[in-house]
Amino acid sequence: MSKEVAAKNKVKFLAFFPDLVFELEVMLENYGMPADAINWFKRSLNYNTPGGKLNRGISVVDTYVILKGYKSWDELSAEEFKKAAILGWCVELLQAYFLVADDMMDQSITRRGQPCWYKVENVGNIAINDSFMLEGAIYKILRKYFKKESYYADLLDLLHEVTFQTELGQLLDLITAPEDHVDLSKFTPAKHSFIVIFKTAYYSFYLPVVMAMYLSGITHEKDLQQAEHILIPLGEYFQIQDDYLDCFGKPEDIGKIGTDIQDNKCSWVINQALRLASPEQRQILDENYGRKDADKEAKCKEVFDQLDIAGKYKAYEENIGKELQKRIADTEEDRGFKKEVFQVFFDKIYKRTK
Amino acid sequence: MSKEVAAKNKVKFLAFFPDLVFELEVMLENYGMPADAINWFKRSLNYNTPGGKLNRGISVVDTYVILKGYKSWDELSAEEFKKAAILGWCVELLQAYFLVADDMMDQSITRRGQPCWYKVENVGNIAINDSFMLEGAIYKILRKYFKKESYYADLLDLLHEVTFQTELGQLLDLITAPEDHVDLSKFTPAKHSFIVIFKTAYYSFYLPVVMAMYLSGITHEKDLQQAEHILIPLGEYFQIQDDYLDCFGKPEDIGKIGTDIQDNKCSWVINQALRLASPEQRQILDENYGRKDADKEAKCKEVFDQLDIAGKYKAYEENIGKELQKRIADTEEDRGFKKEVFQVFFDKIYKRTK
Ligand SMILES: [Mg+2]
Ligand SMILES: [Mg+2]
Ligand SMILES: [Mg+2]
Ligand SMILES: [Mg+2]
Ligand SMILES: [Mg+2]
Ligand SMILES: [Mg+2]
Repeated sequence: MSKEVAAKNKVKFLAFFPDLVFELEVMLENYGMPADAINWFKRSLNYNTPGGKLNRGISVVDTYVILKGYKSWDELSAEEFKKAAILGWCVELLQAYFLVADDMMDQSITRRGQPCWYKVENVGNIAINDSFMLEGAIYKILRKYFKKESYYADLLDLLHEVTFQTELGQLLDLITAPEDHVDLSKFTPAKHSFIVIFKTAYYSFYLPVVMAMYLSGITHEKDLQQAEHILIPLGEYFQIQDDYLDCFGKPEDIGKIGTDIQDNKCSWVINQALRLASPEQRQILDENYGRKDADKEAKCKEVFDQLDIAGKYKAYEENIGKELQKRIADTEEDRGFKKEVFQVFFDKIYKRTK
Repeated sequence: MSKEVAAKNKVKFLAFFPDLVFELEVMLENYGMPADAINWFKRSLNYNTPGGKLNRGISVVDTYVILKGYKSWDELSAEEFKKAAILGWCVELLQAYFLVADDMMDQSITRRGQPCWYKVENVGNIAINDSFMLEGAIYKILRKYFKKESYYADLLDLLHEVTFQTELGQLLDLITAPEDHVDLSKFTPAKHSFIVIFKTAYYSFYLPVVMAMYLSGITHEKDLQQAEHILIPLGEYFQIQDDYLDCFGKPEDIGKIGTDIQDNKCSWVINQALRLASPEQRQILDENYGRKDADKEAKCKEVFDQLDIAGKYKAYEENIGKELQKRIADTEEDRGFKKEVFQVFFDKIYKRTK
């Protein structure tokens, strides 16, 4: 897909969001809710839901287009686009729910170039209930548009399952790497893997594809398993890239200055370093990782360079790339699934530098 | 039901909770979750879910017993008890989810005689994710035990709907009566009514009864409407009692010293006073309500006494009692519903002093 087409699709996807906000507004009016509370909710929806890259939501529509054998979004009927876009926005609402809360738990200051929602004047801890309502909006919308579908209960189960998995990953992240207490002995590659798969891979990769599968009627248990078999390691790889780029990426490429070292993140980078470090190097990491101090951060990076973590990453990337390509090639298509779904994700991600 | 029987039933209901915790523990083990995170979740479940009066959860079992025409819990088969108890505990988990978050939003210190969960050492804002997981546990359990039931999707819809309604009530409460900014002009009887119905009545009264209805196969649309028609005003009355007792109840009866005046609560009491106050009395309320100051609290109570709010309450109670009794008497039983369900709730609540 050309950049121009992708940009056009994003505009179309984004233009659908106000319709959903309007639907929710009408629902709240029907409850008899006072206007100031309706306006509060609308503001939260608009502040927290669009504004990101929307890759997850758009990938529901893209995947549906591929599964239906269409050449582009232009072949979608109005009804098809609407249903795929609704599911896509449900993924974005789910992410908004997670991010509003994550920013409070991480005490972050900004998100997507604006203050975090809880940092906005008069919001504060009300943001907790606002996050609940972002999640609640998903089920109001699904009930309205999908209640009559044969896969309605499965769709709800999918969302519950992925939501819970994300919360499990978040919990392990929070107790393994609290910002205010550094203890590198808590980090292990296994925990890192659990955190990234549960906190990121399920809702970012597996969920949008399975939603599109339900919508297109491709729901054989084996096809759901194929999706998991490829999208979970793909999502793990994506997060490992994120960790790598946070430390080794160019700020002009990634659009920010990495903070994982100072934030005591249980990232792929530190886990590799811990695995390889000599006792002396380990001591340097123990004394310098997770501190809000640029000099200490630089000392960690020195150790990472001594251990050639960047080289280890390149080797990992080659390996995982081959393994994923093999799995994609082995995908069974005889029940209607299309390996192109996976290939499109792979091509967007492989060897990305931003 | 005698006090002894009620106490025995509570013991039986409570004794079932560890089984559910164990089920959840096994589920987390099956995800491959590290032990420290499993233990964290178990601790959150045990700290936040039992420990209250459990009226809501127990009322699922009580209602089911009545609908089935049983004389007591003893007539329940093991399977029947298990399913009703699971649904009851789901209501308690839902409440735990709300309360963990409400305590953070209200900056409360204690709950049920122990520190609020977010106040426990090393918990802090992680409590936000813990509240999410308390909710998530509901759907893990329902999927395991109710997926095959014909009413499974309806049960999920019910829970989503009631959860969202509670969040709507919470939002209106939070923006109408922030603890740090007193503005009595924001209070209206209509807002008070919306807040208590949405924040309390749906999940405390309507939800447990409808769950028991699904379980016993009494699910005609008209019966669901009957339940709403009686349980929502009953729940509103219950909360109005709570507001009244907070101000006028005896601490030795209600087991605590009321704080609604100092906490700037949008309670039934202040809304009645605002409706009846002269300009002078209104000024006293404007200057003294919602301040952390015992003298100012006493000045508000003086105005309440001048306006005979206690007398107004007695009159309200007589009226709503008659209206509810009338509605209960009018309940249609020909589709299998039993008005005794409502009567039992009514008898527990009417003219309570604690
Ligand atoms: Mg964060
Ligand atoms: Mg975080
Ligand atoms: Mg990162
Ligand atoms: Mg509170
Ligand atoms: Mg509150
Ligand atoms: Mg109260």
